[in-house]
Amino acid sequence: MSFSPLIRQLIDSLRILPGVGQKTAQRMALQMLERDRGGALRLAQALTRAMEGVGHCKQCRSLSEDEVCQLCLDPRRDDSLLCVVEGPMDVYAVEQTGFRGRYFVLKGHLSPLDGLGPEAIGIPDLLARIEAGNFSEVILATNPTVEGEATAHYIAQLLANKGLIASRIAHGMPLGGELELVDGGTLAHSIAGRRPIQL
Amino acid sequence: MSFSPLIRQLIDSLRILPGVGQKTAQRMALQMLERDRGGALRLAQALTRAMEGVGHCKQCRSLSEDEVCQLCLDPRRDDSLLCVVEGPMDVYAVEQTGFRGRYFVLKGHLSPLDGLGPEAIGIPDLLARIEAGNFSEVILATNPTVEGEATAHYIAQLLANKGLIASRIAHGMPLGGELELVDGGTLAHSIAGRRPIQL
Ligand SMILES: [Zn+2]
Ligand SMILES: [Zn+2]
Repeated sequence: MSFSPLIRQLIDSLRILPGVGQKTAQRMALQMLERDRGGALRLAQALTRAMEGVGHCKQCRSLSEDEVCQLCLDPRRDDSLLCVVEGPMDVYAVEQTGFRGRYFVLKGHLSPLDGLGPEAIGIPDLLARIEAGNFSEVILATNPTVEGEATAHYIAQLLANKGLIASRIAHGMPLGGELELVDGGTLAHSIAGRRPIQL
Repeated sequence: MSFSPLIRQLIDSLRILPGVGQKTAQRMALQMLERDRGGALRLAQALTRAMEGVGHCKQCRSLSEDEVCQLCLDPRRDDSLLCVVEGPMDVYAVEQTGFRGRYFVLKGHLSPLDGLGPEAIGIPDLLARIEAGNFSEVILATNPTVEGEATAHYIAQLLANKGLIASRIAHGMPLGGELELVDGGTLAHSIAGRRPIQL
């Protein structure tokens, strides 16, 4: 027996959610149909509004529905510290450690084999952001993977040429891990233990 | 730092999904925004279409977008066997055991404390379905919980008064468990070992 077309399409569509396989998608679809159609319709509306309304902050490139995000506009934050991360999800992870400086969000990491060079991941925009600001230190919080390390090293070299201090978050987190998956305590430790990059 | 309103609404809405807590909802929302907006918009559309288009089959009361579902219309199924379950999700679970008779889907189980009596869970409709059909056996596949057992016993007594054989799925599954959560093999065993109900 197969599910009817509308139910099957719903199950297939649910599988785009991270960590949701066929069986979980079936449970989700049938449970919504049986127990919470109102909630499911509200979810549909929230999805549409968010996908159509949320863009990227023109200053930090994080997810934002305003041209410049609340975090960039907040006057109480430390304008001397800039934290560079690989993606918007990392901003929320670093925020939970208590960091209260500014951010810049790259579009991932350098990946020459995939044709992703400095331009593609937004490094020229990062340099423009740094020129426009008044930072005393740039914390490179790319992931502690081979690609993340290479990206941090590349940026550190550019900044050294400009006489700026670049620091790297300490390896308190497992090698090969991803920032957004690590617990807040480990990441806080890692930020507290950051060191200048030796070139 | 808090998420912007549209992102926060999306995260809240995702929490209606079974098994999705705050942290998982955040990951889902940010990942869709970053990596798969097209998929998220298709999900929104599938949700709306399913919630608005899927109703209940007027014969078996299972989920269906047609007035009478494909399963009820299928001429190759065994018209002498009727399997009674507590909800539409259980139909899919029983199908996977190889059962190829007909179904009737109750609206849950008897629950006097919640004011759910025979009328509320659709027992009059079940009796009408049995009268209209030509069943030699009615398999009571309500959940093996206290309420499911009581519901099965109540129906068995009604059927005995009409001279019909009611059987109960065997306790191959854990007591207190739910049909939709059990693996197919256990449930198949349980159906194969069904016994007449002793009143
Ligand atoms: Zn911003
Ligand atoms: Zn039907």
